[in-house]
Amino acid sequence: MTDGTPSPVTVLGLGPMGQALARAFLDAGHPTTVWNRTASRADALAARGAAVAATPAEAVAASPLVIACVIDYDAVHAIVDPAAAELKGRTLVNLTADTPERARRTAAWAAEHGIDYLDGAIMTPTSTIGGPEAVVLYSGPEEVYRAHRQALASLGGTSAHLGADPGRAAAHDVALLDLFWTSMSGLVHAFALASAEGVAPRDLAPFAKGIGALLPAIIDEFAQDIESGRHPGDESTILSAAAGMEHIVHASRARGLDTGVLEAARSVARRAIDAGHGTDGFSRLVETLRTDVLSEDFR
Amino acid sequence: MTDGTPSPVTVLGLGPMGQALARAFLDAGHPTTVWNRTASRADALAARGAAVAATPAEAVAASPLVIACVIDYDAVHAIVDPAAAELKGRTLVNLTADTPERARRTAAWAAEHGIDYLDGAIMTPTSTIGGPEAVVLYSGPEEVYRAHRQALASLGGTSAHLGADPGRAAAHDVALLDLFWTSMSGLVHAFALASAEGVAPRDLAPFAKGIGALLPAIIDEFAQDIESGRHPGDESTILSAAAGMEHIVHASRARGLDTGVLEAARSVARRAIDAGHGTDGFSRLVETLRTDVLSEDFR
Repeated sequence: MTDGTPSPVTVLGLGPMGQALARAFLDAGHPTTVWNRTASRADALAARGAAVAATPAEAVAASPLVIACVIDYDAVHAIVDPAAAELKGRTLVNLTADTPERARRTAAWAAEHGIDYLDGAIMTPTSTIGGPEAVVLYSGPEEVYRAHRQALASLGGTSAHLGADPGRAAAHDVALLDLFWTSMSGLVHAFALASAEGVAPRDLAPFAKGIGALLPAIIDEFAQDIESGRHPGDESTILSAAAGMEHIVHASRARGLDTGVLEAARSVARRAIDAGHGTDGFSRLVETLRTDVLSEDFR
Repeated sequence: MTDGTPSPVTVLGLGPMGQALARAFLDAGHPTTVWNRTASRADALAARGAAVAATPAEAVAASPLVIACVIDYDAVHAIVDPAAAELKGRTLVNLTADTPERARRTAAWAAEHGIDYLDGAIMTPTSTIGGPEAVVLYSGPEEVYRAHRQALASLGGTSAHLGADPGRAAAHDVALLDLFWTSMSGLVHAFALASAEGVAPRDLAPFAKGIGALLPAIIDEFAQDIESGRHPGDESTILSAAAGMEHIVHASRARGLDTGVLEAARSVARRAIDAGHGTDGFSRLVETLRTDVLSEDFR
């Protein structure tokens, strides 16, 4: 890692993302060892030159840098706990998505076992890995990040170290996945509603992209409003949002569609309206999401 | 409208959007008459040269083209029903957001009263009106749209006529608002979760925009999958989406946040998994949203 020669890397877990990570390391010239519970998933990587390990312990022993990317942290521990002795003195970079809490717990486990640990979050789809569009966030000790920065850069695009708190990458991850999966839920629902109304997906798509194009300006505006604690309703109010949601629920019901997500969103807006914030801007709901649950704790 | 001289236009309803519409007509040189229940909302427009009518009937009588933009169709009818006689032989362009069903009903009402009718949907925020980014969709008789195309172009950007079915603009509208408000709900929740985890809105914002940047490619991919009825889970599966949502729900609960929207989204994913579609792509949920509700009808 200091002389510029690509250093050995091990990848544990060969789901679609794990395979993409391993391919990116191979493409960047890193001697790459892989392991997966279902060994056949390693075939294509072996054909590209990856060494296939028979056990996690064997895989770990092959490299100073070990990447884990599986379904959740329970799965991570099922793999790395039995290989803790081999991991000692090496670096584990956990690119599995999970909660900040669990990231901190796994960091504590690593510390107890003398394992250098970075917790990471991959913010872009499998297809971006190794290319300029990939975004991967890391948190944990700065010096551990620095030591492996060059190897991690093989994953492409933007690598960002967010600080020493091992939960920080996961905190970004859950918040961004929150935005992502909620938006995806809205997208499939929009396609379902449009289809039910006789509007073909390909006819809706260009306009749906137009909606997506509104996001950057709104994101900046909301960030500003939330930081200032001021939520002006000049452009659009919670009341008009609730009226809009009401139309969507009405139209969806008329077409026999599930309205669970919309009704939950509308009920947050309604609580804000009931609390006297109807003429505030939509960003005000950040506070409603917090305080209403806090008050529910006392019911 | 044929000789290029800006023709008179009337705008009924002066909420933030109605005011923006009236300003755009004034800026484009149209003699513009306005009316609003709360008359003081017309002051700024009067200062720019708008004529302020005392009643909807008086406002309608001033122009061959009448634009209505209020909170919903009940509000539209409360205004235009008493002015139906004056509207006869004129064109009513209803830019109020509501359901396709209500658009068709209002079109039928207009036909009964000898009123030419277009139903429209404004797809971009108030601030875009009159500028290149505005997107306004129309449906209704082609010849009515053609007759007023030039005046409507004053609203800026993209004007699209979607066909003769008066409900078609509203069908696009509800579907796109569905995507918009669901995404906005995800955005405020993401900011709330990030803040609760100590990540400032301004630190999350650039990454949130990165999530938004993924949308266009996903929209095209989903549209294709939905039209073909094939939902390959090569890149990402419903199972992994459900695992992601589980992490977000877990992290949100740990921070005392409302999880209603996420839980509703997760339950749709779970129903698809229970039906054996866990390894399909997320776009498969378009079908789950339809069929599951249909089967619930029989419970």
